[in-house]
Amino acid sequence: MFRNADQQSRQDSKSIFTRRESGVRSYARTFPAIFTRAVGTEIWDGDGRRYLDFLAGAGSLNYGHNDPPLKEALLSYVEGDGIAHSLDLHTSAKQRFLETFDSTILRPEGLDYVVQFTGPTGTNAIEAALKLVRKFTGRTNVIGFTNGFHGVTMGALSLTTNPHFRNASGLPAQGATSLPYDGYFGPGVDTMDYIERLVGSPCSGIDKPAAFFVETIQGEGGLTAAGIGWLQRLAAFCRSQEILLVVDDIQAGCGRSGRFFSFTEAGITPDIVTLSKSLSGLGLPLAVVLMKRECDIWKPGEHNGTFRGNNHAFVTATAALNQYWSDGRFASEIMEKASHLDERLHEIAGKYPQAMPQVRGRGMMKGLLFAEPDEAAAVCALAYREGLIIERSGPRDEVVKFLMPLNTPPEQLDEGLDIIGWAVDTVIGSPGGRTTARRARKSPVRPRPTPLHVAHTSRATRH
Amino acid sequence: MFRNADQQSRQDSKSIFTRRESGVRSYARTFPAIFTRAVGTEIWDGDGRRYLDFLAGAGSLNYGHNDPPLKEALLSYVEGDGIAHSLDLHTSAKQRFLETFDSTILRPEGLDYVVQFTGPTGTNAIEAALKLVRKFTGRTNVIGFTNGFHGVTMGALSLTTNPHFRNASGLPAQGATSLPYDGYFGPGVDTMDYIERLVGSPCSGIDKPAAFFVETIQGEGGLTAAGIGWLQRLAAFCRSQEILLVVDDIQAGCGRSGRFFSFTEAGITPDIVTLSKSLSGLGLPLAVVLMKRECDIWKPGEHNGTFRGNNHAFVTATAALNQYWSDGRFASEIMEKASHLDERLHEIAGKYPQAMPQVRGRGMMKGLLFAEPDEAAAVCALAYREGLIIERSGPRDEVVKFLMPLNTPPEQLDEGLDIIGWAVDTVIGSPGGRTTARRARKSPVRPRPTPLHVAHTSRATRH
Amino acid sequence: MFRNADQQSRQDSKSIFTRRESGVRSYARTFPAIFTRAVGTEIWDGDGRRYLDFLAGAGSLNYGHNDPPLKEALLSYVEGDGIAHSLDLHTSAKQRFLETFDSTILRPEGLDYVVQFTGPTGTNAIEAALKLVRKFTGRTNVIGFTNGFHGVTMGALSLTTNPHFRNASGLPAQGATSLPYDGYFGPGVDTMDYIERLVGSPCSGIDKPAAFFVETIQGEGGLTAAGIGWLQRLAAFCRSQEILLVVDDIQAGCGRSGRFFSFTEAGITPDIVTLSKSLSGLGLPLAVVLMKRECDIWKPGEHNGTFRGNNHAFVTATAALNQYWSDGRFASEIMEKASHLDERLHEIAGKYPQAMPQVRGRGMMKGLLFAEPDEAAAVCALAYREGLIIERSGPRDEVVKFLMPLNTPPEQLDEGLDIIGWAVDTVIGSPGGRTTARRARKSPVRPRPTPLHVAHTSRATRH
Amino acid sequence: MFRNADQQSRQDSKSIFTRRESGVRSYARTFPAIFTRAVGTEIWDGDGRRYLDFLAGAGSLNYGHNDPPLKEALLSYVEGDGIAHSLDLHTSAKQRFLETFDSTILRPEGLDYVVQFTGPTGTNAIEAALKLVRKFTGRTNVIGFTNGFHGVTMGALSLTTNPHFRNASGLPAQGATSLPYDGYFGPGVDTMDYIERLVGSPCSGIDKPAAFFVETIQGEGGLTAAGIGWLQRLAAFCRSQEILLVVDDIQAGCGRSGRFFSFTEAGITPDIVTLSKSLSGLGLPLAVVLMKRECDIWKPGEHNGTFRGNNHAFVTATAALNQYWSDGRFASEIMEKASHLDERLHEIAGKYPQAMPQVRGRGMMKGLLFAEPDEAAAVCALAYREGLIIERSGPRDEVVKFLMPLNTPPEQLDEGLDIIGWAVDTVIGSPGGRTTARRARKSPVRPRPTPLHVAHTSRATRH
Repeated sequence: MFRNADQQSRQDSKSIFTRRESGVRSYARTFPAIFTRAVGTEIWDGDGRRYLDFLAGAGSLNYGHNDPPLKEALLSYVEGDGIAHSLDLHTSAKQRFLETFDSTILRPEGLDYVVQFTGPTGTNAIEAALKLVRKFTGRTNVIGFTNGFHGVTMGALSLTTNPHFRNASGLPAQGATSLPYDGYFGPGVDTMDYIERLVGSPCSGIDKPAAFFVETIQGEGGLTAAGIGWLQRLAAFCRSQEILLVVDDIQAGCGRSGRFFSFTEAGITPDIVTLSKSLSGLGLPLAVVLMKRECDIWKPGEHNGTFRGNNHAFVTATAALNQYWSDGRFASEIMEKASHLDERLHEIAGKYPQAMPQVRGRGMMKGLLFAEPDEAAAVCALAYREGLIIERSGPRDEVVKFLMPLNTPPEQLDEGLDIIGWAVDTVIGSPGGRTTARRARKSPVRPRPTPLHVAHTSRATRH
Repeated sequence: MFRNADQQSRQDSKSIFTRRESGVRSYARTFPAIFTRAVGTEIWDGDGRRYLDFLAGAGSLNYGHNDPPLKEALLSYVEGDGIAHSLDLHTSAKQRFLETFDSTILRPEGLDYVVQFTGPTGTNAIEAALKLVRKFTGRTNVIGFTNGFHGVTMGALSLTTNPHFRNASGLPAQGATSLPYDGYFGPGVDTMDYIERLVGSPCSGIDKPAAFFVETIQGEGGLTAAGIGWLQRLAAFCRSQEILLVVDDIQAGCGRSGRFFSFTEAGITPDIVTLSKSLSGLGLPLAVVLMKRECDIWKPGEHNGTFRGNNHAFVTATAALNQYWSDGRFASEIMEKASHLDERLHEIAGKYPQAMPQVRGRGMMKGLLFAEPDEAAAVCALAYREGLIIERSGPRDEVVKFLMPLNTPPEQLDEGLDIIGWAVDTVIGSPGGRTTARRARKSPVRPRPTPLHVAHTSRATRH
Repeated sequence: MFRNADQQSRQDSKSIFTRRESGVRSYARTFPAIFTRAVGTEIWDGDGRRYLDFLAGAGSLNYGHNDPPLKEALLSYVEGDGIAHSLDLHTSAKQRFLETFDSTILRPEGLDYVVQFTGPTGTNAIEAALKLVRKFTGRTNVIGFTNGFHGVTMGALSLTTNPHFRNASGLPAQGATSLPYDGYFGPGVDTMDYIERLVGSPCSGIDKPAAFFVETIQGEGGLTAAGIGWLQRLAAFCRSQEILLVVDDIQAGCGRSGRFFSFTEAGITPDIVTLSKSLSGLGLPLAVVLMKRECDIWKPGEHNGTFRGNNHAFVTATAALNQYWSDGRFASEIMEKASHLDERLHEIAGKYPQAMPQVRGRGMMKGLLFAEPDEAAAVCALAYREGLIIERSGPRDEVVKFLMPLNTPPEQLDEGLDIIGWAVDTVIGSPGGRTTARRARKSPVRPRPTPLHVAHTSRATRH
Repeated sequence: MFRNADQQSRQDSKSIFTRRESGVRSYARTFPAIFTRAVGTEIWDGDGRRYLDFLAGAGSLNYGHNDPPLKEALLSYVEGDGIAHSLDLHTSAKQRFLETFDSTILRPEGLDYVVQFTGPTGTNAIEAALKLVRKFTGRTNVIGFTNGFHGVTMGALSLTTNPHFRNASGLPAQGATSLPYDGYFGPGVDTMDYIERLVGSPCSGIDKPAAFFVETIQGEGGLTAAGIGWLQRLAAFCRSQEILLVVDDIQAGCGRSGRFFSFTEAGITPDIVTLSKSLSGLGLPLAVVLMKRECDIWKPGEHNGTFRGNNHAFVTATAALNQYWSDGRFASEIMEKASHLDERLHEIAGKYPQAMPQVRGRGMMKGLLFAEPDEAAAVCALAYREGLIIERSGPRDEVVKFLMPLNTPPEQLDEGLDIIGWAVDTVIGSPGGRTTARRARKSPVRPRPTPLHVAHTSRATRH
């Protein structure tokens, strides 16, 4: 009886979403709980149920939910009537962010970038970068990569490959060419051979590009990491052809790869870098374009936006930089954790080499490739039942994506990985596992105090 | 001596902007102080100097800076580890926002809209609306208006008219047609005659559009308000031709016109409405697309974005709705204040009918048209010296734009208007006034305790 | 019996069209005879039936079919093994054409144009002109006019207004803006007021154009002639704004207006002129772009095409220039004939001012506007039954279009006009006239020796 | 003295080209003679000098200049006042063409194509095909190939790869994707592997195309012939993916490959075929789109054009079909001649395997690849001095292109090849050969009765 009442109230409380929110909503279909509170890697729903969050804002919560030093900084700023909104006026919050970003990131990395605050979304940073590379070179074509994702506003969409998004625009994409990412044709082929031939030849039909836009690790594309050598070759080719190199580090940046920037390991220096997602630390909207000084040929106000001075985000971003990047300890910690993660994922996948042929990714941005997208779906669904929020990506939603906060405590990391291991065993290991998984909706495998919400949606419906 | 030290430190502290921020920055060139703290209509810089903020986030701070009930709601939410970032998951913060928006706005206005949370920028909402109208109608062309501004990402830019922005894109705009806004050809011509003839005829060369995108009051375009009759005729024409009507209420919405929506006065019901800027109340990034239920043909996740669940903004938006829109008192208050503003602006302009031929706008969204853009600039520069932040807009930056918080206390409203009156008298009224204004940079008209920062930038450099 | 056999054979002989020709064919649906022989304004079908040709290749046969001096020149050239095809090599045929065009047209008109031989279609000349104006100005936008027609290849199509053609492309038109032609808003409005305001203002949303493309008389658009004053104002505006003026004289040129160029009467000198249709005189494919010397910034071969050296057309074009344009006699003759035509059309239309409110056009390019497109159709159908080939144009096919050869003998001109007069009387003048016309298919009004082929197709199906 | 006068007069007579023809002219720069008369493979200039024409209208004169049966047919048609121009009306000339094309080509080849007469240029046929494939599939993207050439009007240009043409348009190309042609990555790589992976995968960033546009032998691209197996694989892939296959047979068709259609050898049936160039036989402008019956979804008149009824071309085309294609003899003759050509080219190239690494092409469409474009240029320049007109193509103009009439008499074929052999020996074989070649301009290697016109222009300047 209590259960029914409980269900009833949740039903009601949820109904506002059904009644008033557009059908465009997506993650909420896979993880239908109504969440209320979160700290670190833990998140609770309205019924008090605890979950581990290995999705973590799709890479936006590298330091977890409500990380105390960040939260304190924000509270104190707000209490003191710090300015929240300032267009692009100078504020002390922005000043402190720039100084801290300069001293903890740019100078130690030897990068003389200039910072542009764009509208506080990743896609807006990409739009700004698109304009800039065209303006700088006087060329219109830009190169993106197979399985790439850079946002869904009209400019960024030309670089985003998933037809789910492309078809929604109602206008043919314009001004971009897609070329094969590292590994796209399988292990035997270095796609840079293909790229150099096509982009370097006069009559290939590919107009000389203003820039390459590359993710060093493709998040939405299925956790594929470009090889270090491939990145270096790409950078060298760009230099030799006077083509700009833009690294879209919106998902792979801010420590996810083990270093603040994902390209540092390759020893390359992009002309332009886009950052967003975890930049504010607390998950607040913030996005920047970093550019080599000589690329900063903007006229004042040529790219604008109302919220390009999100001071709350400056405050938490500054706190995050101070907390995590003032010395090398956090980077070391990530690398250790990444190594543990890698080991455990290989362990899990190693049991079923047919069904799970690859562990993908780099640093703390990893993926488990499944031969059958349905099995990946079943694993995630089972995991959610057990209180683990984890998602899939890849062109067929065939990769389970590990994006847990970088500061996830070891025991929570293992707790989550245990759930995955168990789910994999259940789905793949046991005869009829997948059937079981499919039936999970109706008859829970293990008794649980609260009802289960397992839903399958094709990945294209999430983001 | 103390003064020098003070100047020195400010100089230094500012240098980080020069060293690290892109040349794209704009407002900061006109108002170069470094701001630190703000409450209501008042804002202070690092030297403790007080300013009145009649720019107010270019329409993003309708309830002023750090409005206490909104601030309290945010502090309490953050203290309780409320979720900050949630992609588009259901959260209790989003639930409360939807419920409150439903009960305070939609139901009282008789609007059965569905809410899409887009990336938290106005331009992102426009991009979503562009996709939706094309998807819904199967047509590609959309109509915007002369002097219109809808954002600068590639899709929105096709509807934005200022060449300063259009030329920065490096790609020809695609898919939009610009037609004359109400009054564009002067008082004798109803541009709907022109529009109906062109859009309603088979061989006009204007492809049948999916939608009209209209601002009922053009903020960037120079504070021109469309007439009520013109809006009604536009709405009727759209209905008769099965063309969607999109009202971009990003700047004119959220109470600015005197009602929550700017189109209410005209008694029309757009098919789609975009909101952003003041929606969160506190100036936090938030944007939505409202659409008639039958227009909600999105597939799950077709338009996505990392920050479409900015829960802090949901919390402050909810607080703002509860505080200001649970009954009609605030609307009445705005109308009274608007009437006072109007009176005083006519008073100011009435003294110089040649130099200031028009008071423009509607509600609390008003503009003073100057015959000479230089004089408008001089007035703003003088005002800034006196501690009033106020900006210009219009194709030639010829309109001084009044966007003070809607809850500005009467005495502050008059204080600001007094400064404007004095500045106008100084610039226009006195012989050689403009020369004086120009010299303001070097020799302050009235002795002031702190140095003055007066800079002229063409408006196109701000936003 | 003979009749049946005859019909049978025609049936059979026609069937190849049904079996093998694409459904895209259009004129053949309205005038379904199989034509075999033609001289001057007369044309005969396979059954020996004679017709007067007032369509005349839609303006391509200004000197009639097989004009003897042109025919002789061609025969003699071919007999002597003159070169037919030469890419863009120098040939004596091209040399003679250039010399003759120089001496009979350019020098007498005081025009220092350079000649570009494009692919031998009007649309190809427009494509070349589009490239040239963009290259010359560095701008992308071009302006076309309501009801304009400039061809249907992708570039030209952006300037062609009829949705019948625009919708067939499968890609949104790009790079052109349509503005109102002279008279588009009725007699009280000078559309140049609108144009100057929209094109001359910074934030109109119409990007500063490279060029205006204008037909001085709109053939497909419904025989509307721009006023001389309007053309002069347009030319002056272009000059003042450094926008190029392109006159598309493909249909109105080559004498149709009374002078070789249709713009001569206005005393303006376009920067660029396109010619085709009647240029070769005999109806052979030929097209050129004429441009002011300073506009000739082409790199060798930048715009090419296999048939840009159609020497047969050079030969007949030279013969036509020598025959008709070596002195002013032909121009006078056209003007006299035009005046007679005008008189008779006014006579015809004057009887039914309600049903036929306007005689349109200029020179020998005239149209009878019908209030009801159906009546215009009925008139043409009846006329065809009587042996007159004449077509309609205009956005609703509401204008009967007079494009008879310029050298039509007076008696044939009157013979054709008599048929029109009779058809108008039949359709409009008599009670039930339209019904009669519709029945014309089955029961011929007047006894005729051969069966009648009357078919109605909407104009959009022809061209 | 007489010689000088002669030269003087030629100089003068040529001056009209300098004075009045646009700088866009190209071939005339390489072969500056003024040509007057031509029969078969022989062509004479105004000084009576004889040349062999191995360029032959870049593939437009497969039956040579003024081929007697074609010429006679035309003369007799014109003498009888046959209709020259008829828009798309039915004429007996068109009827005979369709019947003959049906009986000599389509039925014997087992092809049930419908014929669309487009504007009489190859590029116009491509524009029509582009519209049709988009209309038929509802998709916008089309695939072209590296080094492809399909014309230079805006639609066709999107499929043309040479930047010389692409850059001239002033608008970014839209709606097409370029993929690697057979052999593009060298002998070890089957580019269909790449194509299948990229076009067949969901997130490659290449929108599912409406069609592939392919030349089975690339004329402008450097005489590269696709392998039979590659073509078959392409056709099978198209079928499996429901993508249309368009063979652009404008240059390789009409017998050039040894069969009337170039794709016959591969045993594939394209959905759509474009023909032009040699279709009329005599070099008169004519172009058609052939399409499978089910693809003929045109509405009447959706793609139009004034000269789509070039009856002179119908007459000569009919004569050519009757003369050459009524039985298999001509095809056999071509194959024999092709085999002789092939042998001799291998002989010539075999002497200098370093300098001339490849004999390319198929049938009578062959090319000699030079390692150094300068040497190819020198060979052509020397050949022209000796009275042979022959051109280059390829991305760097590195391929000497053999396009002599298919009915070139054996002795003239050898005469031309002898000149090439001698020129190659002179340029490559002898020490300092290239220097000699360069000096050829001033001091002829062999005494010749007439002055020499050797000019170098980069190939991009020709077409």
